[in-house]
Amino acid sequence: MTNPNYYTDLALENHEQLQDDSGVEVTVEEDETLGATVTWVEITNPTGSNAMGKPIGNYITLECSAMKTPDPAAHEEISKILARKLSALFPLEEDTTILVVGLGNWQVTPDALGPQVCERMLVTRHLQDEMPPELQGRVRRVAALRPGVMGLTGIETAEIILGVAKRVKPDLIIAIDALAARKTSRVNTTIQISDTGISPGAGLGNKRTPLNHKTVGVPVVAIGVPTVVDAATLVNDTMDNLLHTLELHTLDAMDIDARYALIKNVLDPEAGNMFVTPKEVDAVITRLAHIIANALNIALHPGITVEDVGRYLS
Amino acid sequence: MTNPNYYTDLALENHEQLQDDSGVEVTVEEDETLGATVTWVEITNPTGSNAMGKPIGNYITLECSAMKTPDPAAHEEISKILARKLSALFPLEEDTTILVVGLGNWQVTPDALGPQVCERMLVTRHLQDEMPPELQGRVRRVAALRPGVMGLTGIETAEIILGVAKRVKPDLIIAIDALAARKTSRVNTTIQISDTGISPGAGLGNKRTPLNHKTVGVPVVAIGVPTVVDAATLVNDTMDNLLHTLELHTLDAMDIDARYALIKNVLDPEAGNMFVTPKEVDAVITRLAHIIANALNIALHPGITVEDVGRYLS
Amino acid sequence: MTNPNYYTDLALENHEQLQDDSGVEVTVEEDETLGATVTWVEITNPTGSNAMGKPIGNYITLECSAMKTPDPAAHEEISKILARKLSALFPLEEDTTILVVGLGNWQVTPDALGPQVCERMLVTRHLQDEMPPELQGRVRRVAALRPGVMGLTGIETAEIILGVAKRVKPDLIIAIDALAARKTSRVNTTIQISDTGISPGAGLGNKRTPLNHKTVGVPVVAIGVPTVVDAATLVNDTMDNLLHTLELHTLDAMDIDARYALIKNVLDPEAGNMFVTPKEVDAVITRLAHIIANALNIALHPGITVEDVGRYLS
Amino acid sequence: MTNPNYYTDLALENHEQLQDDSGVEVTVEEDETLGATVTWVEITNPTGSNAMGKPIGNYITLECSAMKTPDPAAHEEISKILARKLSALFPLEEDTTILVVGLGNWQVTPDALGPQVCERMLVTRHLQDEMPPELQGRVRRVAALRPGVMGLTGIETAEIILGVAKRVKPDLIIAIDALAARKTSRVNTTIQISDTGISPGAGLGNKRTPLNHKTVGVPVVAIGVPTVVDAATLVNDTMDNLLHTLELHTLDAMDIDARYALIKNVLDPEAGNMFVTPKEVDAVITRLAHIIANALNIALHPGITVEDVGRYLS
Repeated sequence: MTNPNYYTDLALENHEQLQDDSGVEVTVEEDETLGATVTWVEITNPTGSNAMGKPIGNYITLECSAMKTPDPAAHEEISKILARKLSALFPLEEDTTILVVGLGNWQVTPDALGPQVCERMLVTRHLQDEMPPELQGRVRRVAALRPGVMGLTGIETAEIILGVAKRVKPDLIIAIDALAARKTSRVNTTIQISDTGISPGAGLGNKRTPLNHKTVGVPVVAIGVPTVVDAATLVNDTMDNLLHTLELHTLDAMDIDARYALIKNVLDPEAGNMFVTPKEVDAVITRLAHIIANALNIALHPGITVEDVGRYLS
Repeated sequence: MTNPNYYTDLALENHEQLQDDSGVEVTVEEDETLGATVTWVEITNPTGSNAMGKPIGNYITLECSAMKTPDPAAHEEISKILARKLSALFPLEEDTTILVVGLGNWQVTPDALGPQVCERMLVTRHLQDEMPPELQGRVRRVAALRPGVMGLTGIETAEIILGVAKRVKPDLIIAIDALAARKTSRVNTTIQISDTGISPGAGLGNKRTPLNHKTVGVPVVAIGVPTVVDAATLVNDTMDNLLHTLELHTLDAMDIDARYALIKNVLDPEAGNMFVTPKEVDAVITRLAHIIANALNIALHPGITVEDVGRYLS
Repeated sequence: MTNPNYYTDLALENHEQLQDDSGVEVTVEEDETLGATVTWVEITNPTGSNAMGKPIGNYITLECSAMKTPDPAAHEEISKILARKLSALFPLEEDTTILVVGLGNWQVTPDALGPQVCERMLVTRHLQDEMPPELQGRVRRVAALRPGVMGLTGIETAEIILGVAKRVKPDLIIAIDALAARKTSRVNTTIQISDTGISPGAGLGNKRTPLNHKTVGVPVVAIGVPTVVDAATLVNDTMDNLLHTLELHTLDAMDIDARYALIKNVLDPEAGNMFVTPKEVDAVITRLAHIIANALNIALHPGITVEDVGRYLS
Repeated sequence: MTNPNYYTDLALENHEQLQDDSGVEVTVEEDETLGATVTWVEITNPTGSNAMGKPIGNYITLECSAMKTPDPAAHEEISKILARKLSALFPLEEDTTILVVGLGNWQVTPDALGPQVCERMLVTRHLQDEMPPELQGRVRRVAALRPGVMGLTGIETAEIILGVAKRVKPDLIIAIDALAARKTSRVNTTIQISDTGISPGAGLGNKRTPLNHKTVGVPVVAIGVPTVVDAATLVNDTMDNLLHTLELHTLDAMDIDARYALIKNVLDPEAGNMFVTPKEVDAVITRLAHIIANALNIALHPGITVEDVGRYLS
């Protein structure tokens, strides 16, 4: 899981904080039936990049609170929207090879999203000549890797991916990761896609090898879902409400960075190692993994539908 | 898991808040090598009971931060201390039947402590005549029940236990449950034992059938470990530190109850359904279950040692 | 899991072995699209009972090899057929309370079918007045119990069920269990329903308290799926084929019981403790649990469809 | 899991079948207290290699039935013996980097041995400068990889390992895998070590890239444990006993290969996809993973004992 830091993982959150958005193009689509909003942020130049604190590229955010409740019909719709956005972001040739990478620690539920997506992928790269007849011409070559996390492997995650990519020679890498949000309300309700790559295991104070077009030689799409907030964010969000209620403006007037740092500082040292998740976190992560894997299976394979995915993978 | 409420589940915390402790006898033992403290609070009369907000009875609290770190030698020592205290609390006849009840939801890691303890119990009630020769005369009749939680069963947990107890006819019931703490630092570092029974599933706004000597007809010992704090407690603890740092005394001066209620009120509604756990919660719960099950196996069976437990159960 | 014995758990297999079927009425329905066969065997009198080695009552067997392959559309059809048969077997009043019991050991995958069905039940008995408005009038009162197995609890399973039933006061008990088959081909392709009750944990040499109308006071429906064969059955089945191939008739001429006993006798003692399952046993048990839980949810709740089940339970 | 074939995975079994063992040196050690036998088979030349059907190299087999029962003290002794043999097989420099590879499918219990060993390794390669002071000078650089199986990844397992090895640059690779045995009695009682490499995913009809000194450029040690037998082996073993009992010698006189092929042929097609495991397979695999991981942690790290392993990893 990418650790929380001030420059939030969610480009959308950054955008909300911006006064000036030159170099940043934003398109918003609403699906009222579903209660879903898709925001496509394109950072087009260094001005926008500086303003957003993010590289030039595309940042698509799908927000829908139905993704954390047990509503299979809504989940199917979300998968379809996601699949359309993914297809718009990276047009694929027929003979493309795609490497799906499930980042994160499978032993820690809120961080297991990436590995769980991998387990639900329709993996086909190894079938080649032995493809079942009913799948022929309908699937692209897809591989799936769960590299683990450095604490379990002793190897920087990017090293594993680079080593495997050198042999698999994919045309596109798609990395799925659980993120930490800056707002409690974003947890398990937001999916962000970007084409600017990812730095597995990065976060506060960790310098890590980035995975992007420059370092891997092929496009790297990142799909992230905030599945936790850290303790300091929770306190900060609560404090906002509290101080307004009490009409105390001392903290209110503080710079947003300074206040976050102050709270981190006065947190119980025990709490620094804690995370905040919904009680039903196991069920929610399973649902999110289904939504994202379905979207990828539809977007990556030209002749596969949601129904087929059930047929071949359930 | 018992929900957090102002009258905390930990008698120890109540005691710390008391000015006046008449009707309350407290004995403290320290084990310096282990860094462990055992506090035995005995509430002896209604005055003590009113002051503590807890029934008359015994409340033993073992605090040791080694229980949340991977230190098997320390865990063995903690199990032995715990076994001695359990034996002091309930002297057992040779032919006693004991029903161990693992409360909580096995699908939610921090609430799975009780069920996990059950899985590590040396269960013997069914062996009777077919007892392996090397165990004869060394074990008491022990049964273990995981009743589940009402959301999964549709049955109030106390109903299940009362129904089974009627047939098993135990001389003693020991119920293990995960609790919610009022202090972040107590999470996974404290084990509390009491002989005043338990109300499975009780908490804020839930009235539940209590299990105690009066309702079941036999003594009910409760063993609890705080494995989470709720979001409001985390914020409250952080606030304490923050306000002192900032020398703001508005909130400081507030009544402790009023402040907790205020914070609960201004919490993001999403956060109300969240809990705060350490990242390595799965490993910690497994360790705690080992510690408690070992202690029970030693305390309940007259001729069983820590080594035997490994032999018969690993 | 009920242990294999000569009097097989599958009434259907007994019937195939019968020469004379007076007192036994058999109706067979085929669903050609699905490749499913439903056989309803009704044992109507003591002659039939003696001939079949089974009590008087109804034995419904649904055979369909699609249930062990990943085919959600077929599974949905199987659930619907099963729901219709269950409804025909036990007509329900509107205010009926049903106790669903998931027999078996959740730690042993092929025996975990019953517990897994429980986890997918739409449990409603505890909701009563707080029923969500959209469910009002559409659901009956359903409770679900996973009693565990005697090796884990120290308590005979029937004792637990009788104790809980005394308090829950159900009008009907439905017990789900994994069985051992007498034919390798039956594994994970057959669901049997009967209204004659069940003896949890019974099998070769184990006398157990039966659960049936007489012992519990309410009807007891048993739903069983053979999920394993024992090693001796596997050898026996193979031997049949082998001896015919070799035209050796020494064993062929042996009494069927004597031959099974002989094979059990010469089995490697290690193999006696072994069971034979498909490689993908975890996935198959999960699928079977879905099929049965969906069927029960539809059959027990008057206003619930397969789609709703997804909505409330996924 | 390596599929069963006539040329069994266990060199020991081959050796038992040999009449002539020139080019094969065998040393046998017994530990009577533990009931363990260590057989070190060294194949020294092409004659031995042809006779054994295995490459030139060392094959160490540790047999001890205590490894499948819950006996922690015995397991510790087995780990120590194993560690000594591993150290004798590959003397290590102080600054050696070792890559431990856990082969197999973590979703299939009897095949999950390799991945489970990885989870218990004391992984240190990433710590480097930040090594905790109490570990300095006591540990070598160890990394651990769980590559998955081709059905889950779409990538040949050897490709993943070769890609990662190119970046990690280990001096030694140790691969752990679950095997299929030719004798029922070998299941979960035998550990085999060899220094001749491994072909992940190979077996009947599968040609796979081998991992050995020639293909990877560094020594490859394989550690295997037979955790299943296939259905044909079980039948074959039983038949041996049966035919002797019946004094039927038709099959007895058959060539051992021909008979195995015949049995495979007459097996129920359903049984071909089945495997035979002990009922308590989950617990047994966990125990075996502990034994092997402990042995590796002691053998790979110069200053680490069994006690330390508990301390740093439990």
